[in-house]
This record gives sequence, structure tokens and C-alpha cells, in this order.
Amino acid sequence: MYPDALKDLIASFQLLPGIGEKTAERLAFYMVNIDEEKAEFFSNSIVNAKKNLHKCPICSNITDKDICNICADETRDKSILCIVEDCKYIVMFEKIGTYKGLYHVLDNLISPLDGINPEDIGIDKLVKRIEKSKFKEVIIAVKPSIEGETTSLYIKKILEGLNIKVTRIASGIPLGADIEYIDAMTLERALLDRKEIE
Amino acid sequence: MYPDALKDLIASFQLLPGIGEKTAERLAFYMVNIDEEKAEFFSNSIVNAKKNLHKCPICSNITDKDICNICADETRDKSILCIVEDCKYIVMFEKIGTYKGLYHVLDNLISPLDGINPEDIGIDKLVKRIEKSKFKEVIIAVKPSIEGETTSLYIKKILEGLNIKVTRIASGIPLGADIEYIDAMTLERALLDRKEIE
Repeated sequence: MYPDALKDLIASFQLLPGIGEKTAERLAFYMVNIDEEKAEFFSNSIVNAKKNLHKCPICSNITDKDICNICADETRDKSILCIVEDCKYIVMFEKIGTYKGLYHVLDNLISPLDGINPEDIGIDKLVKRIEKSKFKEVIIAVKPSIEGETTSLYIKKILEGLNIKVTRIASGIPLGADIEYIDAMTLERALLDRKEIE
Repeated sequence: MYPDALKDLIASFQLLPGIGEKTAERLAFYMVNIDEEKAEFFSNSIVNAKKNLHKCPICSNITDKDICNICADETRDKSILCIVEDCKYIVMFEKIGTYKGLYHVLDNLISPLDGINPEDIGIDKLVKRIEKSKFKEVIIAVKPSIEGETTSLYIKKILEGLNIKVTRIASGIPLGADIEYIDAMTLERALLDRKEIE
């Protein structure tokens, strides 16, 4: 029904996660009507991204250099490693600006029900890196879900005997949130992880 | 913080309607990780769509030909014209398959509050086409909203004296819908437009 060029454009948008047929149609029609130079920018961005971006061989962060900016930065604290599940989180931590250590991005979180086992999350690369480095502390900063907890425990176990302190970022009630609306599991964790007021 | 190629890709997705920073980031990261050939297909689709697609000079439907398939189809009924607000609707009508007349796509619906006046919806092109053709009936198939009603009445008025029957598609309760959940305006319209059972 649609011309081929339009069908291809709709099919392209449908490649993206969370975009179904209707949304793909809407985006494709929008694209047909935007300025020539914007469309060119879009198409070039895809080509350039595929050509220039890759995972940092050390930490798996996305970079356009041989080694990512953070791994290459000699001023970073090489005794501490923060493990995240997604490179987006690195940007969030860097925005806070208080963390000066290094990062490591997992490929995924362990989820046996979805068929994601330890060997699928890039654990080998992580362990090899830690064995070769002199980290004193490894902070696990993955989301507090069943998958996150499983992954945290697995990493904790696999690093046993290496004399490294393994920590995880705190879970609890978000700042400013109303306790009334907090789910039971978060509240339970907040109670369990209570800290003495100093 | 992000490499330039990634920033550009995020900015590209943000060009699209309804896609904010977070979604653009998610899509960009996804794009970085998809197969080379899929990314190439995506980028080529954009280029090809911009190169090959344009509005049909007769009906404003999107086409990759000089004149769209429907306008070029000699077997279509040239005595009846269906006016739609979006070329997507042509595809929907064609899927039903019972309508054999021609179509005309408006650029927009009249909405004085948004600064969209009759001259902005492509009314000139429509009127010129109708004056040059021999339509016996014009069906207005725009959505039953204030803008749709305004546009319908405007078209009805402007075609006065041309001896053309101007109709609009029926509004009312959708098939299978529970009357309990129908809004008052639709119910009012359904009552007003009641038909004798034959």
C-alpha cells in the first residue's frame, strides 16, 4: 500500500525497542516531512555512530577512542572500581562528580529465568581486569532488583580471597519521598540497612 | 560527557516527535549495539525516503511516483472524492476495500486557536481540483473534533453552488463498545444522527 521507500523507513523505526507499527508509521511520516538537512544529519549520525563508537577494551564503556576517557585519565583513583550495568550510569555518576575511581560496565545482569547466566554478563573480562589491577574496593552499583542482587552476590563470591572490599550502593527511601508511597520491599531494605546517626 | 558521535545520534532521535532526552539516549545506545547491516538499512531508508518520497501533485498523498497509484488508477470512480486529514487514513480506507473513489489529503485541520486558518490546510489546491473535476459527491472523513467540524463546515460552505453533494462519515458509538463508557458528546451525536431501522 505504501511506497517502498516509506515501507523501508517504517521497517527501520520498527527495529528500535518499544516502537511498534503505529509509532513507526507516525515517525516515518514525520521524517518524510522534516528539513532535508535534519534528515541528512540523522542518517549521518547513524553511520558515524556505527563507524566511530565501540566498547572500551578495558571497561566496556562506549567510546570513540582506543581507550575511553576515564580509563585513559591518569588522575583517576586506580584503587577503586565501580561496577555498573549500563554505560548511561557512568554519565550519571560523573555528573555528581564526587566519585574519582574507575568504572566497569557489565554486559547484563544475571537472570537465569531469562537464560542470562554469569558467562553472559562479561564476568570473565571483569575478573581478569580485577586480577591484573590493584583495586582495594569494588563498588557494585546495579539496580536493586532480583537480577541486581543475584549479580552482586555472584561478584562478591567470585572476588572472595582476592582481599578486596566489595560494597554495594545503598538502597532505601529516595530523598524527599513520602514513606506512605514506598513499596514494602524498599521499606524493608531501608529498615534493614538503617545507619546510626552520628 | 558522551563521545561526539553518540551525542549526535542522541540529538538525531530528539528531532522526532514525542521523543525526549531519556528515550533518545535509550534508542541511541540500542542503535550503537545493533548489527552493522541493520544500521545501514536504517540510515539508507532515511536517505531514500527523503530522495524518493513527495506529495502527489493531485491529491497530496505521499508517493514515490510522479502521480500516486490511486490518482493514476484509471479504474477508480472519478465521481467521488474522499477528503482526509492524513495520508495514513487512505491506507486504512484502502484496507477496507469498499471505497473505489479518489482521495484528497488536507495539510491540516482548521484551528484558529492554533493559528491554523483555511489557507493553511491546502484549501486552494482542493478547490482548484474540485472545480476542474466532475465530482458528484465529496465525503469529508476527518476526525469528529472541533477542528474537524470547523473544517467540514468550511469545506461544505466553500463548495456551495458547485452542485456537489457534501457528506461526512458517520460519528457515533463504535461497534462493540459499551454505552456506559461513551463520552456525552459522542452519545449526543449518536442520538442526533439516529437512523431508521430498515
